[in-house]
Amino acid sequence: MCGIVGYIGGRQAQDVLISGLAKLEYRGYDSAGVAIREQGGVIDVRKKAGKLVNLASELQATPLPGTLGIGHTRWATHGLPNDTNAHPHASEDGRIVIIHNGIIENYLPLKAELIARGHEFRSETDSEVLVHLIEEKYAGTPGDLYEAVRLALGEVRGAYGIVVTHADHREIVAARTVSPMVMGVGEGEMFLASDVPALLPYTREMVFLHDGDMVVLHDDGFRVTDLAGNAVQRQIEHIDWDAEAAEKGGYDSYMLKEIYEQPTALTNTLIGRLHDDTGEVNLDIGLDPASFKRISIIACGTAYYAGMVGEYLIEQLARIPVDIDVASEYRYRDPLVSEQTLAIVVSQSGETIDTLEALREAKKGGARTLGIINAKGSSITREVDDTLYIHAGPEIGVASTKAYTSMVSAMLLLALWLGRARGTLGGEQARELLHAARELPRLVEAALAPERVARIQEIAEKYAHASDYLFLGRGVNSPTAYEGALKLKEISYIHAEAYPAGEMKHGPIALIDEDLPVVVVATESRLLEKTISNVQEVRARKGKVIALLSDGDTENAQHADDVIYVPRAHEMVSPVVNAVAMQLLAYFTATALGKDVDKPRNLAKSVTVE
Amino acid sequence: MCGIVGYIGGRQAQDVLISGLAKLEYRGYDSAGVAIREQGGVIDVRKKAGKLVNLASELQATPLPGTLGIGHTRWATHGLPNDTNAHPHASEDGRIVIIHNGIIENYLPLKAELIARGHEFRSETDSEVLVHLIEEKYAGTPGDLYEAVRLALGEVRGAYGIVVTHADHREIVAARTVSPMVMGVGEGEMFLASDVPALLPYTREMVFLHDGDMVVLHDDGFRVTDLAGNAVQRQIEHIDWDAEAAEKGGYDSYMLKEIYEQPTALTNTLIGRLHDDTGEVNLDIGLDPASFKRISIIACGTAYYAGMVGEYLIEQLARIPVDIDVASEYRYRDPLVSEQTLAIVVSQSGETIDTLEALREAKKGGARTLGIINAKGSSITREVDDTLYIHAGPEIGVASTKAYTSMVSAMLLLALWLGRARGTLGGEQARELLHAARELPRLVEAALAPERVARIQEIAEKYAHASDYLFLGRGVNSPTAYEGALKLKEISYIHAEAYPAGEMKHGPIALIDEDLPVVVVATESRLLEKTISNVQEVRARKGKVIALLSDGDTENAQHADDVIYVPRAHEMVSPVVNAVAMQLLAYFTATALGKDVDKPRNLAKSVTVE
Repeated sequence: MCGIVGYIGGRQAQDVLISGLAKLEYRGYDSAGVAIREQGGVIDVRKKAGKLVNLASELQATPLPGTLGIGHTRWATHGLPNDTNAHPHASEDGRIVIIHNGIIENYLPLKAELIARGHEFRSETDSEVLVHLIEEKYAGTPGDLYEAVRLALGEVRGAYGIVVTHADHREIVAARTVSPMVMGVGEGEMFLASDVPALLPYTREMVFLHDGDMVVLHDDGFRVTDLAGNAVQRQIEHIDWDAEAAEKGGYDSYMLKEIYEQPTALTNTLIGRLHDDTGEVNLDIGLDPASFKRISIIACGTAYYAGMVGEYLIEQLARIPVDIDVASEYRYRDPLVSEQTLAIVVSQSGETIDTLEALREAKKGGARTLGIINAKGSSITREVDDTLYIHAGPEIGVASTKAYTSMVSAMLLLALWLGRARGTLGGEQARELLHAARELPRLVEAALAPERVARIQEIAEKYAHASDYLFLGRGVNSPTAYEGALKLKEISYIHAEAYPAGEMKHGPIALIDEDLPVVVVATESRLLEKTISNVQEVRARKGKVIALLSDGDTENAQHADDVIYVPRAHEMVSPVVNAVAMQLLAYFTATALGKDVDKPRNLAKSVTVE
Repeated sequence: MCGIVGYIGGRQAQDVLISGLAKLEYRGYDSAGVAIREQGGVIDVRKKAGKLVNLASELQATPLPGTLGIGHTRWATHGLPNDTNAHPHASEDGRIVIIHNGIIENYLPLKAELIARGHEFRSETDSEVLVHLIEEKYAGTPGDLYEAVRLALGEVRGAYGIVVTHADHREIVAARTVSPMVMGVGEGEMFLASDVPALLPYTREMVFLHDGDMVVLHDDGFRVTDLAGNAVQRQIEHIDWDAEAAEKGGYDSYMLKEIYEQPTALTNTLIGRLHDDTGEVNLDIGLDPASFKRISIIACGTAYYAGMVGEYLIEQLARIPVDIDVASEYRYRDPLVSEQTLAIVVSQSGETIDTLEALREAKKGGARTLGIINAKGSSITREVDDTLYIHAGPEIGVASTKAYTSMVSAMLLLALWLGRARGTLGGEQARELLHAARELPRLVEAALAPERVARIQEIAEKYAHASDYLFLGRGVNSPTAYEGALKLKEISYIHAEAYPAGEMKHGPIALIDEDLPVVVVATESRLLEKTISNVQEVRARKGKVIALLSDGDTENAQHADDVIYVPRAHEMVSPVVNAVAMQLLAYFTATALGKDVDKPRNLAKSVTVE
């Protein structure tokens, strides 16, 4: 999660960059930097660690003149957040500068090759390999910067939003995969940014770049191609959003925007951490996987359900006993903790007071501690031994969506890492699971396909006036049922409750009648047959079954009143894919009932009181 | 739980005893026996291990003539269920015979003294000390049997229903504490039994004996005294129940009967197991408390919530890590089990298939196993290493009541035993907790006082038309909230859901509006202040608060819309006392709505399918 702004036109670039970056600062604030091309064809780079204000005041004191520039605010993934590692990065001769969001997964071998060919590296970032690659490819002819960037991108694997400029040419070259990028079209000026709000003060004519798009910007126009160099048509759209709508990316709510951001959020959670070739996971944490014998997961609300998936995955893959506790209970129950305990605390905000206090309780007992956290630099991250950031980006909607799926994915990474480190997970199984994990952004993208969303909306509206809902799941998707019920409860105020499917007959089955919709997670699994038995128990009592089935499962469709098909996924990663359907069901139920999904009654985003 | 029948009159006693015992066989069927006084003043004893039918066929083949007799069906607590240990027990000269239900807690020192004075014991039962004591006190004068029994009872501590007869006197002497006893009054004949149905074919004029009552029966009348020998008036009641009503003991339902049976059930769970003087607990199980390092509790439904209390108590008192799992989930999640795991399975019926299969899964992994079970000889008891019987007696109502509180009490016993055995629980704290446990029957009796029951009925009726309910609790009473919600759900079909109180603000608080009753367990506890904060959060959102408060807590009453006062209890045993209020609330809600509480829709008592 970083912010990018680019400008070419008649204004002083510095002003456009700083005002735009300020709108994007929510995306990261470890460091900020700008590169501005002066009229004589010299590029000046200015970068500062810390918040944008540090850079802005320096530029105010000693401005950098020039009408072409690129700027960046950074949320560190590789390398410390210091001045050296801040963007932009310049080539050795200082004539090419780039800004890069995302992660270059194969940067280590590329860096080794570049060093062997005589390149000198100044930063610890993965991004710097791009500068050197572009420098190598650049032949010096006009229009060649575009070609150099294109060839360089052909050698890297990973996610990126990249903007490049060269002292010799008045142009900006940009490209994207995963990291979002939007172009603003003005009169004799062009803009680029990670997000719409940065550009709204200047233009409302925008072009949303797609994955795999490259673009060259001049003062008076732009040209889009694919990575193979073929021209691509992208429409200019007139954006009449007000500032708030712009922050919602044109969606009706932050929640819906964040639901759709999940492919990107998941990519950011996973990227750079999976090594398919070796079956290893790199988490960049100092935790010694042999230093504990028990794991205690502690969390509240949605994070607790992500923890439940973690409990399942870690026990399965790493064969370590895992307990899970609601934080408010943990802190007061004199928990069993020792130096051989690893306490994992999970929180989007990193500020949840119950979780923070529970963490302190665990530390008192001598536990090692790991945070699974979204918000950089939050209170919990300052008190744990290690943090595994989920990199989901800011989540504004009170009902968590992308943070949940990213937390679950982070739990999967952790389980894989522990399993490999402790020798309980073989290389072959690890590679299979890594592959499954890597598929997640694509699967979630597929789960958000318009026809699927429309079908879920239809079902949501059909049952929107139910007074209760039951959610059932088994095994690793038992938490999916809990999270689905919580989501519905939070934003629609319908009393939804979840149970492990096999537990239904031990009590809650008494609730079932023809007015009760029962959502059953019945996607591909070794327990599917058992789950279908539970479905039949519900039907026998006239309950209405809404079944989540894997694509192509027409056989079990006969047992359901309504079917939500979800993309087929490996059982171990399916909670992420299935959660998306749950979010949409809750979302459309709430909107059908006219509820304010972003600010549900009684709730707060970050619960900092007991 | 045993069955007693006594007869004196003009009929052949054998017929009355066997027909009466048949009606009581649900109370136990390890062995059966009768003692019949022949006309010449000789007493014949006949007893057989196994079910009543064994004895009945023998008596049919070779009848015992005589018109005075006592009979018994036994559910073994001390000593094996063999012929020797079966009741009645006779004195050394064979002239005094007794039947005893219950447990003599101080039988070991009494037995030692009796042996020192020359008595020879033939059985392993605690009951036999009573015969020898009575024999010692008996002086041989008419009317002296009563006095001998009275003096003997003065030396024993424990629970009993006792019937005694002597070859020299045509009379039956009986007494009771805890174990129920009812007397039937006929024309020139008198009856005694543990329960009404045994007597219905003969008379509808009954006298219900109270705790501490003694009675002498002759052909044409009876005399009741207290244990000090003072005459007591007991009314003859005309019972116009049909057979089914009789089985319900005059209550409207089995469930209500079983709610009121809890003081007795709890006494049976606890008795003989607590040693206040030493602070020790005797569970008569072979389990080596040093043989495991982790405990895994596995159960379904109500038993699962009893297990949650167990998890809390065992971790607190014995400092062993405890996991708890829903059985249907446990069996399919490839659980972490080793020889160092103790798997505790909890089931009223001992036949719950999910629990049984989970047990087998645990055994596959090498776990030691312990059952906490009500039904003697059930499938689970045959497959576990040890069983801790809860001795709650038969539970017919589908919604569990007395089995729940007895399971929770058994968990307390287990936690105390483990804590003592592993040295984590000091003698003083142990004695304090033993004392608190011993108080339970009395506290539950108090919780069932008519004015309290009436108040709960009033509240139940006030909110009976709510569509939802929320239940909140913290710490050891967090499971009380879960059990309360389950009970309401099961029999009233109102959607009741429970949360740990501190978790409410992480989601479920969105449900709260002026139509939502929220039951909060806020009895005396070190967490009471925190719980009251949660109460205020509910009230701030206009939720209706029904608070369970400890007697005398007028201060916190101001925060509630309605208060259910419960007897003050030690926090560690309070889940038992509080559960009673929950049961009554559910019961009266369901009856106000006209539901069949004994046979709620969709549910089965013993779930023997997956």
